[in-house]
Amino acid sequence: MFITFEGIDYSGKSTQVRLLEEYYQNLGKEVLLIREPGGTKISEKIRDLLLDKKNMVMTEKTEALLFAAARAQLVNEVIKPALERGAIVISDRFHHSSIAYQGYGRNLDLHFVENLQYFAISDTVPDITFFIHITLDEVARRKMENNRGGDDRIELSKDEFYHKVIDGYIKLSESDPKMKLIDGTKRIKTIHSDIVDILNSLSA
Amino acid sequence: MFITFEGIDYSGKSTQVRLLEEYYQNLGKEVLLIREPGGTKISEKIRDLLLDKKNMVMTEKTEALLFAAARAQLVNEVIKPALERGAIVISDRFHHSSIAYQGYGRNLDLHFVENLQYFAISDTVPDITFFIHITLDEVARRKMENNRGGDDRIELSKDEFYHKVIDGYIKLSESDPKMKLIDGTKRIKTIHSDIVDILNSLSA
Repeated sequence: MFITFEGIDYSGKSTQVRLLEEYYQNLGKEVLLIREPGGTKISEKIRDLLLDKKNMVMTEKTEALLFAAARAQLVNEVIKPALERGAIVISDRFHHSSIAYQGYGRNLDLHFVENLQYFAISDTVPDITFFIHITLDEVARRKMENNRGGDDRIELSKDEFYHKVIDGYIKLSESDPKMKLIDGTKRIKTIHSDIVDILNSLSA
Repeated sequence: MFITFEGIDYSGKSTQVRLLEEYYQNLGKEVLLIREPGGTKISEKIRDLLLDKKNMVMTEKTEALLFAAARAQLVNEVIKPALERGAIVISDRFHHSSIAYQGYGRNLDLHFVENLQYFAISDTVPDITFFIHITLDEVARRKMENNRGGDDRIELSKDEFYHKVIDGYIKLSESDPKMKLIDGTKRIKTIHSDIVDILNSLSA
């Protein structure tokens, strides 16, 4: 079982990832948690390049290609072997992030950006994806409440960019039956039990 | 004018790059020499990842994507601005290297690898490419003669791989009129003057 979580920062996606990990661990299952970009030695070095504020001159195409490179390595070295031995793999972001951020957000050739993902991941496609949706107003409210410290290079992008990213995620969830849109303004526990219900209905 | 040199290591390509640089400098032209992968801060960091022997677990897809990422950055940050101000840009390897090494050599989806190049470079296509051709027997002879020290990660690949790379270069030169096959076993000075003749006939 390969489960991915998507959404913009502050959507609460990482909290849900942790809760789901605990849920499966309590059932005695092997769970592998993935942080994207990263997760292998090579991918972590690529992550450093992507998030380093010194690299503000990075072009949008370089960015898209580096994300794909990190992902190709992660799939081959970590995700595929874990799925083959029967582990549950939960990834905080995966290929939909690239399509939403680089394709929709950065206005790169959407068709190419999608092909780029399938080149990188081949047949290692998630069984199900939870897109935790919140609006930018909600993001602003949460940022005020809980200042997480400095923004990284990608977080320094403007609001218009995030509007396009959210719009992209919504379009993806509308066209892909394996991508579930979850209302991120619900209570944390409610979201978690909704997710568990969906997962249990899948394996039933 | 954007000129690229292609060929396997030991073909003498870097020597020809230097001779051509001198030739244009003696004519008082601004010449920009490019080393691929690399040439910008970001691209040099990607180069380190690609050539580091510690990264032997790197997948072929990751490799192809990293080369493209380094190239996208180089084109945007360095090559395009140089061409726009009228400089002559000479690059030791460019997009044909990826098609020959990753497409033909590594057996990756050739059509995708080609699309990947055009995504990375957009309209910054070389005006002319010199493919300095030598056989693997000639490489073996030159290696014996002049041991350059340790091989890097890509140079550690096997002979079969290099046969496919050379074969790929030959096919590319047959289908692309802007790619000239040059016999790399000729004398260095002869090759240089042949190259200069071709370039002068272009601008005539």
